Order: sequence, then structure tokens, then C-alpha cells
Amino acid sequence: MSAPESGLPMVVPAPGLPARVRIHEVGPRDGLQNEKGQVPTEVKAEFIRRLADAGLTTVEATSFVHPKWVPQLADAEQLFPLVSALPVALPVLVPNDRGLDRALSLGATRIAVFASATESFAKANLNRTVDEALAMFEPVVARAKAEGVHVRGYLSMCFGDPWEGPVPVHQVVRVCKALMDMGCDELSLGDTIGVATPGHVAELLTALDADRVPATALGVHFHDTYGQALANTLAALQHGVTTVDASAGGLGGCPYAKSATGNLATEDLVWMLHGLGIDTGVDLGRLTATSVWMAGHLGRPSPSRTVRALSHQEQ
Amino acid sequence: MSAPESGLPMVVPAPGLPARVRIHEVGPRDGLQNEKGQVPTEVKAEFIRRLADAGLTTVEATSFVHPKWVPQLADAEQLFPLVSALPVALPVLVPNDRGLDRALSLGATRIAVFASATESFAKANLNRTVDEALAMFEPVVARAKAEGVHVRGYLSMCFGDPWEGPVPVHQVVRVCKALMDMGCDELSLGDTIGVATPGHVAELLTALDADRVPATALGVHFHDTYGQALANTLAALQHGVTTVDASAGGLGGCPYAKSATGNLATEDLVWMLHGLGIDTGVDLGRLTATSVWMAGHLGRPSPSRTVRALSHQEQ
Repeated sequence: MSAPESGLPMVVPAPGLPARVRIHEVGPRDGLQNEKGQVPTEVKAEFIRRLADAGLTTVEATSFVHPKWVPQLADAEQLFPLVSALPVALPVLVPNDRGLDRALSLGATRIAVFASATESFAKANLNRTVDEALAMFEPVVARAKAEGVHVRGYLSMCFGDPWEGPVPVHQVVRVCKALMDMGCDELSLGDTIGVATPGHVAELLTALDADRVPATALGVHFHDTYGQALANTLAALQHGVTTVDASAGGLGGCPYAKSATGNLATEDLVWMLHGLGIDTGVDLGRLTATSVWMAGHLGRPSPSRTVRALSHQEQ
Repeated sequence: MSAPESGLPMVVPAPGLPARVRIHEVGPRDGLQNEKGQVPTEVKAEFIRRLADAGLTTVEATSFVHPKWVPQLADAEQLFPLVSALPVALPVLVPNDRGLDRALSLGATRIAVFASATESFAKANLNRTVDEALAMFEPVVARAKAEGVHVRGYLSMCFGDPWEGPVPVHQVVRVCKALMDMGCDELSLGDTIGVATPGHVAELLTALDADRVPATALGVHFHDTYGQALANTLAALQHGVTTVDASAGGLGGCPYAKSATGNLATEDLVWMLHGLGIDTGVDLGRLTATSVWMAGHLGRPSPSRTVRALSHQEQ
């Protein structure tokens, strides 16, 4: 059985939630960087064009990390000019000064840096301590800000860490404040291994607010590893967050399960937000069609439940 | 990457939520009734035993509908005696007087009737109007109550209906009150097509409470068709609900998507509840092992994200 007639959710607002949410679409970067095969540059460009056409206003386009680390996004220099004229925000990931040079030379006006709340992941991902990573980002952020570039600070492992277990809230707050102090315009709190539950989300947001990092400066980035991403998002909205990261079609695989998802699927998020009467600007039908089209290119079905339901696909 | 060490969620309670939730496990009935193939009676019995052993206190065991309508559960007479001595509540579905006779003759002490909030689904499922169906249940409930049997009233299509679209709240309230008035001990509000969002859940629970159907008499039965089940559950908990229906491993297929789920997976629910510090009595590891074992019998992977993550299965 399908949704009532239109394939759109019924609208019943709930008190205390924001009127509008900005979706930070991470599919082309965070989703595709985990793909085993190489996606052709023109397909990536078309993906970003379709996402913009579906009404997404922020589409993280690619990454200027060294191609050795993320070969899937080694075509950043070729891709970015193909989409840079689109009337949407196109942040790009930048790990260091060299990456910033590459991004600036192509006219990028929004960058993101990628920090960690835990020593273990800072070591694994950046081969640095948390503070060494922050020190590496500091001049990058300063130069970006001097060039008028908008800076997002990603923070990984904000809830649990596969090596360290539960991550103390004060530890997350400390790195958030350091990122804000160095000039980041916004932060994205990542539940990189998907273990958070709604009370934990509420606790972290409350602690950040008490330490002068308001929800208005924060995005949330939940993974659906244990199916918790949308419930956690609801808790974040109830605590004033208005920016939510998501990946079209749930792109971004788990390392251990072929059809399992890492990222919250944008379509599942949009279904909830529109049902709550929260404006996103997104056309759910067009977005779903885009994810079905992309799933065809990748040769496997989307893990998004909304995509599966609306596309009536046998998967 | 996996959960921190133990494979259990970290515990961070949230204010205003119940200390304990009763999970009404529907896998053996609602899950298996949608299976194409016949599951051997002994496998069903072992499934129920394992669920009880995992700490579930209410396991809906089978259905005494006419075998013509649900051939998958035609072995109810053989199955029930195999499990009836288990120290858990074992409600059985009963559609009419004949079904009640069969259930009582086997010593069932808990039954459930299955009503609809919409005319279209009452017609499709029971070939009756809503009021004709209620009239059919009335003597069944009366006789069950006279025999000291606990009665649950299921109500389908409480939010949206595939033929009628959005279902007005007052229409749902009317049928709920009729079921309570005829003597049901508890109701289960079904989002049969999975279209609800959290504001809609809150609206219905608020309307029911205002009309003297308190949340303490209610269970919620969400489907994950659009990925909304857990967020809707959180909204229900925030409005005082303490009984949640779920299906081990997410058993209970969608008619249009092989690996898509209908029912909220018990494991995904338990992850959230335990993360919130809410007691369920369930051992998540044992429950997950049970769903993996059952998935082996059914020859396809569980759609539960928590089962997939904890079992590290390539699916």
C-alpha cells in the first residue's frame, strides 16, 4: 500500500519546531567518497545539477583532499567548474593549506574542515592529535575567512567512538569551542558510527548552548547504522537545530554491509520535515527520481525507505 | 565501525520519558502472516521460545482467523499448545465468535480483535462497514471479558489510508472510544501504511486524551515504510505512551519491496529505548541472535539496521 494519493506526507505541525530547515546535502561528497568504483565526473556533475533542481540549496560538491586518500574524489578540479555556476551553495572539503589553494583557485566560496572529537579518530583519520589537527586547520580557516569564504567545521565522533567508547560531552564541547573560536561559521556534529540516541543528542546540544555555542550555529550529521538517525534529528529539532545533514538516497555505505546505510537518507528526512509542516524547499518527487537515477548508475538499490516506497521498486 | 565495545547503546536518559516500556512483540503473528512460504510449526514455536528467552514479556503468538484468509497461520491449533506454558503473555488474534471458541478451547488468556478506522479498509479487510465490524466484535469482546480474558483492540489506518488519504482524527477517536466502551483493555493505534509523522502522532494522542482515552491504555504500532517509525515512537513516548508494538528483525514484508520492512524492528526500538535509559527487560544480543536465526530460516536478511550492524552480516 502506498501513501495517500499524492505520495506526499500529510502535514500536521508540532509545536516548538522550526518553520524552516536547511538541508546540507552531502551525497556527492560524503556519499560518493565511499563508493568502490569510480563514478564518471559527468555523472557526478549531473547528480549535483539534479539535486539543485530538486530544490536543495546546499550541496557539498567534492573534496580537495589528496587523491591518494580519497581516489573517488580525485576529479575535484574537473568536477567543480562543471557545477560552480549553479545557483546553490557548493561547499567543498578542504583538509589543509594545499587543499584551500586548490579550492580558491576554482572560485569556491564555501569550505569545510574535518576535525575529530576523539584522539583515536584524529590519529586514524588525520594521523595527528586532536590539538595538532586543530592547529593545522587554524591558518586554513583564517585565510579562508580573510578571503570571504564561509567555513563549516565538521566534528566526527561526537557521541561514541569505536575505539574509545562513549565520548564525554565536555570533550566535544571543548573542540566545538575551539573550532568556533578559530572562526568557523557553522559546525556539524557527527555521529560517525551511528550509536547516538535522542537523550544523548539533547544532552550535547544543551551543554553546547550553556557554553555559548547556540543551536543556530550547529548542524547535525546522523548516521543510520542502528536506525536512530531520524529520531535523533527530531530531538535536535526540538532543541533548536535548523540545519540537518543528509545524503540523497542514503548514499554512503557502511564498510560491513552492502545495502546498509551510513548517512541519513535525505528523502526520509524530507518526509518527516514536510509532514511536520517544516519548509525545506525540496521537491520530494524530483529528489526521489534523482536517487533512483543515481542508484541505476551505482548498480544497487537505494537504502532509503522513502525512495523504495515512492519508487515502488522491487529491491 | 561498530558500536563502542559492547554492542550496546550508551545510556543518556531524557527528561519526561517513561522509566519502562512494554514491547508488544508481533513478529510471530504480524511478521509471519506476510511470509510467502510456510514456516514449519516447530520453527514458529522455537521463534516464540527464543523471543521469550530474550526477555520479551508479550509475544503475539498466532491468529485464529479462518485458514482461507491467512494460510500462513493455519497451524494455530498445533502451535499454541507448544508455547502456552511459557511464562509470558501470548495474545492471539481472534476475528469472530468462532475464532474465540478456538482460542478459548486452547486456554488462551489474551486475545486481540482487529478493527479499522476507515470504511475502505474495513471493507477490504473484513468486508464490512466500520460499524458492522464493531458490531461483530462486540459479543466477542463481551464473552472474552466474561471469561476473564484480556482484550486488545487493534485499529488500522489511524493516520492515512491508501484509498481515502488522510484520516480525520475525530474519526479515529470515535472508533477508539467504541472499542474501549465495549470493554477492550488496551488499544493499538496502527499506522498501517507508514505515512505518519511525529506531529500527527502527537495530535492524535492529544485528542484521545482529551476524550478520555488516556495514553496508558494505548499502544502504538508504526510501520517503517517511509523510515518514520522510530521518530514517531519517540513522539508517542513524549506523550505518555508506554506500550510499543514491534517485530523482531523487522519481520513483516511490504508487498512491493522484497527487503523493505513493514513493521518497526524490535532491535531498532530496543536500541533507542535502552539508549534513553528506558527499561524493557530485553537482552538485545539474544534478540538479535534470534532474528539472525529466523532470517536464516526465511532465506533472506533482516531489514533491521540494528540486526545488520550487530551481526556484521554482509547482506
